[in-house]
Formats: sequence, structure tokens, C-alpha cells
Amino acid sequence: MEYHYFDNAATTRIASGALEAYNRTSLDCFANPSASHSEGHRSAALLSRCRQSAASALCAQERSVFFTSGATESINIVMSSLLCSKRPGRILISAIEHEAVAAWTGFLREKGWTVDTVPARGGFISPSDVYDMTDSQTRLVAVMAVNNVLGTIQDIRSIAEAVRARERESGRPILFFCDCVQALGKTGLRPGQLDIDAASFSGHKIHGPRGVGILYLKKGTIQVPSHAGGQESGIRGGTENLPAIAALAAAMEALDIADQQKVTVWNRLIRKTCSECGIEVLSPDRDCTPYILSIATRLPSEVALRMLQDRGCLVSAGSACSNNARGKAEAVYRAAGFQKAAGNAIRISFSQDNTDEEVEELAGALRSLVS
Amino acid sequence: MEYHYFDNAATTRIASGALEAYNRTSLDCFANPSASHSEGHRSAALLSRCRQSAASALCAQERSVFFTSGATESINIVMSSLLCSKRPGRILISAIEHEAVAAWTGFLREKGWTVDTVPARGGFISPSDVYDMTDSQTRLVAVMAVNNVLGTIQDIRSIAEAVRARERESGRPILFFCDCVQALGKTGLRPGQLDIDAASFSGHKIHGPRGVGILYLKKGTIQVPSHAGGQESGIRGGTENLPAIAALAAAMEALDIADQQKVTVWNRLIRKTCSECGIEVLSPDRDCTPYILSIATRLPSEVALRMLQDRGCLVSAGSACSNNARGKAEAVYRAAGFQKAAGNAIRISFSQDNTDEEVEELAGALRSLVS
Repeated sequence: MEYHYFDNAATTRIASGALEAYNRTSLDCFANPSASHSEGHRSAALLSRCRQSAASALCAQERSVFFTSGATESINIVMSSLLCSKRPGRILISAIEHEAVAAWTGFLREKGWTVDTVPARGGFISPSDVYDMTDSQTRLVAVMAVNNVLGTIQDIRSIAEAVRARERESGRPILFFCDCVQALGKTGLRPGQLDIDAASFSGHKIHGPRGVGILYLKKGTIQVPSHAGGQESGIRGGTENLPAIAALAAAMEALDIADQQKVTVWNRLIRKTCSECGIEVLSPDRDCTPYILSIATRLPSEVALRMLQDRGCLVSAGSACSNNARGKAEAVYRAAGFQKAAGNAIRISFSQDNTDEEVEELAGALRSLVS
Repeated sequence: MEYHYFDNAATTRIASGALEAYNRTSLDCFANPSASHSEGHRSAALLSRCRQSAASALCAQERSVFFTSGATESINIVMSSLLCSKRPGRILISAIEHEAVAAWTGFLREKGWTVDTVPARGGFISPSDVYDMTDSQTRLVAVMAVNNVLGTIQDIRSIAEAVRARERESGRPILFFCDCVQALGKTGLRPGQLDIDAASFSGHKIHGPRGVGILYLKKGTIQVPSHAGGQESGIRGGTENLPAIAALAAAMEALDIADQQKVTVWNRLIRKTCSECGIEVLSPDRDCTPYILSIATRLPSEVALRMLQDRGCLVSAGSACSNNARGKAEAVYRAAGFQKAAGNAIRISFSQDNTDEEVEELAGALRSLVS
């Protein structure tokens, strides 16, 4: 059955250029980049070119770019670096962080860490809240750049300033970590232009391949429990996934901020449709990426999802990053203050692959949901 | 330039069937398996079929098979499970474990763990040594099934018996972990038929794709610091790399132990050539996979490697799993008792993709090395 895919915040279809890069590299440059022979050197050279390309897209230095198996692994590397501390301290995370970050809190608490949670009223983290909740014991602050459920864009620059102010006061470093998975390609955010210590990126959210991502480390290093085989400067061991890295680099090169214009038009059309039909729009209309739009009908999320699906439109009942996706998304809606709407919310997420016709279909399907 | 690739223990070229599965899945089944909509369900169903297929190849139950980003991540999950212990204990690892295991020892020692190393004379671990070096404080024993440098096959059944005997004596569980990266497809080893608690596997060593592997857990569970998004039953978070998983399943299905016959013939031919030329063979001729053959000429490893390369034959100066590959391989040779030969050793590793003609070329190149 033909369908219209509006779940691009969960995963995107790989772009043809990225898939071609994957195939080409798999067949023509398959040697291990660590091998001492000529083909190994050829692979190492390609790896280096991919790193240059990715660094350029992030306005970062090459030494700050580490290829990982995805955003979750990038996050795990940052969080596990805390375990290298001599003694536990505090961390501050936002109330709407991705589960990949939030899931560390239980373990860290068991190990003696204090975990503070900064509120996210309306889906936004206040820099002054971050300042107030950070102290001389705080070792890490984690605030995602763009929320995966609501699409809200945080004021990372001001939050970084709040963190740096506290750092200056206490004279102790605080690692400011920014999950940028939904920011890449959906905003103009460039970690190299911000005062972020660490950031995570994913390939498959930007029409790149699954199983590859980036860890950005401003200083080009971090403590980790294991250097494994020493790949990626000891930050991430394991044979480099060169076909996927080449495909990721191709996907990053193809990112075009101009796509945002058509997505903005689609977003406005759906907002207008919702307004006409009495469907509540949860995603704010300022400081919000047009790619992600959360709305709430009067139907339970799963019912609305299925009725839209019957009209060929695939949306999400929330984040798809877990087997209990709806529960996780509900937690974000509640944290943002949408207690009443949480159980009725659905997330529409666009990509460059959508078409005007598809979005018209979606608008019609939403109208039919209400009638 | 045309070349003959004899570095298959470092990485293999992806099989056409596996690459086709990757492409097909990337384009036709790209939705997130955790998504609630119909395409998500289709992805989840494919994931389930791949798990069945992999479990069948390992003679394991489906609930014991966890897809990871590769063997290093599988190993990291096992080693990081130790951090969930209330207090530190002992671990026992072999002197020739892969760097991905060995690199954990520094961190574990810092955290109060005692790390014991069981010797590997001639490249073999003695079950009675394992018994003698295990006590009531031992929480984990790690012995790889097939060594990546020498090709030696360990008596995993007897080592498991030694571990279980100690377990019975102390009444405390010991996690017996077996890195099976070089065993899959090169031996008849099936973790489900052995008394192993955990095992690691890699896709790209068996003509599957990079960036995917398996963690086998007999009991279907283990403690981990973070469940992240809850994928893979909370053992390995992150959106499942379905294209690579489908390709891995295809590669595992294509494994044919009959290939071992032709590889055995090639191995014998090179052994015979070495014997005729006065080249020392380091890999033992019993309990050793024919796919891996370490030899030592009178030239430094790098010189021999380059001379063979000039004749079109690509071999390894040791394990290619690090930027200091030669150093790591040398450590294995030394641990096995080849102190004198260590600096002159090279590793030849075959795959089903090699041909009789290529192996003849290699034999000729080895002869020319001596003359």
C-alpha cells in the first residue's frame, strides 16, 4: 500500500547519494583503515576525507569529530566519561532530554551522583534556571538543542553562557553536552560556533544511513573507560564503519537549509488546518523547528494514529525510540505542561522527501478525523 | 593496481547477497521498528525474522541474541556490566585477549577490581590454569574462542567446565565470556551448544557489513548502566540498524563450513612453502583455524609486508584493530612464547573469496622474500 510518511523525526529514508556512497565504499574501499598495507592506507585516507567533510558541515575542527555507531553511543560515551571521575558529583539534565540521556540517571544515582532536572515549561529550558540549578559540584549539564517530540529550539548560546558563568565562579570545569540529533539539518546550529563541550549527531535522521553518528568534542578528548582498539583516537573503539561514514558525509554535504522554506509552508498549512478544525497545536509557533509538529485531537493518540494511517498518513504517537514510545512522548508533553493533551497527542514530522500533495492529503485526513 | 587480499581476519569484503539485503532493507523497510504505525510493524517483523535466523545459525534461543554495532560494543556491554556490581571483585582474562577486552583492565583496576591474566603458552589457554586462577571473588572469566593473530582454537568446553567447577565450589556465579569473532564461520563453534554465558560476534569478519555484530547472552539478560531507548530488550539502545542486521543475517545464512576444505588446502600449501624456504611457522598445526596463519621471516614485519605488497599480496603485520597494530600483535606473539620471532611476524588470513591462483602467487612471493 502507498503511504505518506510523516515520521521523519523517528527515522528518514536514506538519500540515493548516501546509499551510493555506502555501496561504492563497501566494494571499492573495504580494507580496514588500521591495516598497514596499501589498501588500508587508502581506507584511512577516505576516513580522513570524511572527517574533514563532516567537520566542515559542523564548523568544527577535524580533531573534534569522532565517528560513532549513532547518537545513543555518542551519548553513552559522554555519560560514561563521568564514571572516570575520582568521586561522584552532580549533573543537571533537562526535563525533556531524550531517553538515551535520561536512562543514565538511575545508574548514576546508584553510584552516588546527584541528578538535578531543569524544568521545561512549554518545552523550553530557561538559561536562568540552568544558572540557578548549577553549582560548584556540577560536572555535566545536558540540554538538547531541538526537542524530538515538540520541536522546540533551545537558546543554547544563553544556556552555555549560564554554564560558563558558574564555571568562572567555582573555577571548576562543567561539561556542557548538547544532544543535536534533531538540530542537524533542521536548524542552522553549528556546534563549532557555540560554546558547547560535547554534542551528539545521528546519520539516519538526516537521510544518512543507520548505525552511524558523530560525537563532537570541542577539546578533541574526553576520559573514557576503554580505548578498545584505539580507533577514533581511543574515544570509540571498533573497526570504523567506513561505508556508513562515507554515506553520512554524503548526507551531510547534501543538507540544504533552503529545504526549510517548503517545510515551513507545510507546517503552516497543517497549523491552519488544525486551527480550523479545533485541533490543539502543542508545538509553539516561535523557536520551534518547522520539521516537527505536535498536535492533540480529542481522540487517544493511538486511535488518531490508526485513523490517519487508514488514510495513508503515517505519523507518530510520540518518539519512536523505544518500545514504549507513547509513554516516553507523554512524559515530554507533561513536562512541557500539556498534562491534559498528553494522551491525545500525535507528532507529525516532515522531511525534504515529502511533497505538497502528501501534505494536502494529511490536511484532509486531519479534517476527516474531526468530522 | 590489482591485489591479492590476505588480510581477511582484519576485515572481509561484503558478500553480494549481504549488500543486496542492505540495499533492499534501506529502501523498502526503512521505518523505525519501534514506530507504532504499519511500516514500523513491518520493520519490527523483519527484525524478528533476522533474530530468528541469527539464533538458528548460533544454535541459540532468539531471546539470547542481541544486535549491536559490532564486537567491540558487545564486549563493552559485557565489561560495563561489571560496573553494576555493588562492590569490585576479580576478573580473569587470557594473555592473548583482543585489545577490546584487554583495554578495560586499567579502568577496572582504578575502580578497585583485581585483574588476573591466564597465560597462553603456544597460544593456548589451559583449562587447569583457568581453574587454578579462579576463586570465589572471580566475577568474570574472558577467553576468546579463536585467537585473531595466531588462529589457535581454545578448548572452550573444558574451560567452561573449569569455570563451572569453581562456581559450584563457591556457590557464586561467574560470567564466562567468550569473544567468538574469529570463530564464526571459521570453526563449528555454536555458543548455544556450549556452557558460555556471553559471546561476541562481528558482521564484517564474515563477509557481512561493518557496524553490526551480536552479543549472545545465554540467560537473555545482563545488568547494564543504561537501557537508553529500550531497544534490544534494554541491553543495547539506539535505533536498530535494520539494513545492516538484515545483511548480517544474510551473511550468516551464507556461511558454509565446506569452504574450510579449500582454505585448509591453501594453508597447507603456504606451510609447505614456508618449510621449504626456512620461514618459521608460528601458528600451530593442531587446534588452529586454517583461515589464520602467522609466520616469521628473517625480515622485520613491516619490511616483509611491503615486499609482499610489491608482489601484489596484502598481508598483515598483526591485528589491524588499532593504529598501533604491530605492537598489539607483537604482544600476542610474545605472550604465546614467540619472543624472538615477534618482530618478524606477519599474519596471512584467508577467506572464501581467495582463489587457488592467488594462493600460488602468495607462495611465489614468499619464496622471493627469502631469495
